[in-house]
Amino acid sequence: MGRPSLDDRGQAGPEARPPAGGEGWGEGGKNIIMFSFQLKKATDSDGPRWGKITTAHGAVETPVFLPVGTYGTVKTLTPEELRALGAGLILSNIYHLFLRPGVETIAQLGGLHRFMHWDGAILTDSGGFQVFSLASFRQVSDEGVIFRSHLDGSRHFLDPEKVVALQEALGVDIMICLDECPGYPAPEVEVRRAAARTLAWAKRSRASRTRPEAALFPVVQGGMYPELRREQAQALRQLNFDGYALGGLSVGEEKELTWEMVAATIPELPVDRPRYLMGLGTPEDLVEAVARGVDMFDCVLPTRNARNGMAFTNRGRVLIKNAAYALDPGPLDEACGCYTCRHYSRGYLRHLYLSREILAFRLLTFHNLYYYFNLMVKMRQAISEGRFADFRREFYQPRRNGGNSSD
Amino acid sequence: MGRPSLDDRGQAGPEARPPAGGEGWGEGGKNIIMFSFQLKKATDSDGPRWGKITTAHGAVETPVFLPVGTYGTVKTLTPEELRALGAGLILSNIYHLFLRPGVETIAQLGGLHRFMHWDGAILTDSGGFQVFSLASFRQVSDEGVIFRSHLDGSRHFLDPEKVVALQEALGVDIMICLDECPGYPAPEVEVRRAAARTLAWAKRSRASRTRPEAALFPVVQGGMYPELRREQAQALRQLNFDGYALGGLSVGEEKELTWEMVAATIPELPVDRPRYLMGLGTPEDLVEAVARGVDMFDCVLPTRNARNGMAFTNRGRVLIKNAAYALDPGPLDEACGCYTCRHYSRGYLRHLYLSREILAFRLLTFHNLYYYFNLMVKMRQAISEGRFADFRREFYQPRRNGGNSSD
Repeated sequence: MGRPSLDDRGQAGPEARPPAGGEGWGEGGKNIIMFSFQLKKATDSDGPRWGKITTAHGAVETPVFLPVGTYGTVKTLTPEELRALGAGLILSNIYHLFLRPGVETIAQLGGLHRFMHWDGAILTDSGGFQVFSLASFRQVSDEGVIFRSHLDGSRHFLDPEKVVALQEALGVDIMICLDECPGYPAPEVEVRRAAARTLAWAKRSRASRTRPEAALFPVVQGGMYPELRREQAQALRQLNFDGYALGGLSVGEEKELTWEMVAATIPELPVDRPRYLMGLGTPEDLVEAVARGVDMFDCVLPTRNARNGMAFTNRGRVLIKNAAYALDPGPLDEACGCYTCRHYSRGYLRHLYLSREILAFRLLTFHNLYYYFNLMVKMRQAISEGRFADFRREFYQPRRNGGNSSD
Repeated sequence: MGRPSLDDRGQAGPEARPPAGGEGWGEGGKNIIMFSFQLKKATDSDGPRWGKITTAHGAVETPVFLPVGTYGTVKTLTPEELRALGAGLILSNIYHLFLRPGVETIAQLGGLHRFMHWDGAILTDSGGFQVFSLASFRQVSDEGVIFRSHLDGSRHFLDPEKVVALQEALGVDIMICLDECPGYPAPEVEVRRAAARTLAWAKRSRASRTRPEAALFPVVQGGMYPELRREQAQALRQLNFDGYALGGLSVGEEKELTWEMVAATIPELPVDRPRYLMGLGTPEDLVEAVARGVDMFDCVLPTRNARNGMAFTNRGRVLIKNAAYALDPGPLDEACGCYTCRHYSRGYLRHLYLSREILAFRLLTFHNLYYYFNLMVKMRQAISEGRFADFRREFYQPRRNGGNSSD
């Protein structure tokens, strides 16, 4: 079973790879699109890049933002609305789906795509981070992790093989290897042990996969130790994965330290594989990470903050509950063309939000994701036209002017 | 300023009225559509009728169901979704909007239509029922009612003139006169006093209106006393309103008693004015009320029950949380063509509902309103084709067979 684009191991420079392609043949003779990554434009190995990820469920251009659909739904939105926003790849989560409704249930109902009526691509996080941040009890060994559900205290065991099997049973397009995510701050010896385990688990994950069309990404851990991050990236690179995730960042550290870890990791990763910075971030984070060569992002900020009444705008953040907006006939963002901004005033949105109306959460979520997707479009355009530095400067301009910012 | 169709006082039989029309001239010489009701088909004065209500914000055929948009939003849905469902006339509520965000705020933001981005017609309930059912304190006199907000305990005064002025300030299409809604059960002397006051308030409401294009309906009260209901209907009919509401029903009484009161009231109302049964009901209630000559309905059941996980289907009610649906790949209702039923399984909806995902509330609300609107379409068709009795019999058939009913 050929995996043409993944077997192309040359250090592909800009535009060096053949266009898309990536098709292979599944076992039944059915034509299955294999995962592939095409680098369309890049300047340095650790500078901004424009590319394209192709999966069995469609293609997306990178840098790409993945809206978070923890429980098999991007909160408040339908799949059609996600499509209208420009989403082609979303994130879901093994830890959450494993506990509720159960992966077996989703598999019996036709897999995650059919279950949630989403025909685009899906990446699932392995649950490593959730086991370490949410579970009420956990016990890690080289074998795997025993934990108790944060929902009902029930006891469960996950290991690298099972996590791959669960993701394959869901039928997702990009799988993440189980990792151990140490707390922050943590002593180096502890972080080293977790990183070594994460590396060993990545090997086991790779050995256990059975669905070649789905991509598998390991997680680069290493805490706030740049040398360890470098080592991990180098070791994982040798294992030749479809893409690479950067984990254990934005866990409470200073932003400067985040960028230091990103800078330590990115140059050690292969140029021709997508790089995925897990769990970040603000619009500013995205711009900074793209500038450093990151291709993929997921974050709950646009959706969660929407449900807390916060809108991202071109002039900064708007807290819609502020009394100043009670009689405001203007849109959330004068520069925005989204459904919410075209039809609803700040006064109305404030009223809906204070009344805890579900429509408030929908309209703010839609706006925030529109803002994020629009930001990604603008970044991709700027990179493709070789003017990312200008874009970055212009991006900060209205923010420095203050404007309507509420925070 | 002419109100042609409302000045046509003949006992219009089926198809007796001129088609639609109802246009008049506003003060600024601007062409304003006046409220009108056209009876398209009727058999008896108290049998099923097919008609059309025209307003400055579009026309709807009757019998018509009004989705409830208490706080200036039909919970979970956008106006575009309401349109897709076939809604042309929705209900909002003076009591709620008066307290939050305040009518003055809405007026300053361009009126209720613009505020909520709804270009269809709006009927507002006067708040009479809410003052008596929600307010934490109330003191009624012939003058009006003093009450305390259920939200913050603030003290307010409303009288018939103010309630009309508030509805006119919102710019709604159909206004309801302030009424006094006695509790149930209540002694006849008390109900008589409330009915007399409601009648006096209806006169004051009519005298105070200033926007001729908006309709004004009084509320027929009279508790569970058929003779009093008849008297009230006769007295209000003399006052020549644009339509008539039946209030104080479905407040805890036996269903048989509800229909007895409807039967006492309807024949006393003019044939050529719409009859609006407030706050009812189940699908069965709607069929029974249409059979008795009612034209308009509003009820929170389809929307509120959706948020409580209950779906109306052609075979009865489905409680989506039931364990039996965990692995069910079928739609809520095999016979339904709505967005929810075309794309989502019971298994998925159950998962969303148990996870308290907003999408669950959206999808169930959409389905339930689709069911209600479809029911109204089928009733209008049956009436127009002279086969309502057959429709009514067929309507009960799958229900008697049981099927998937969960309650």
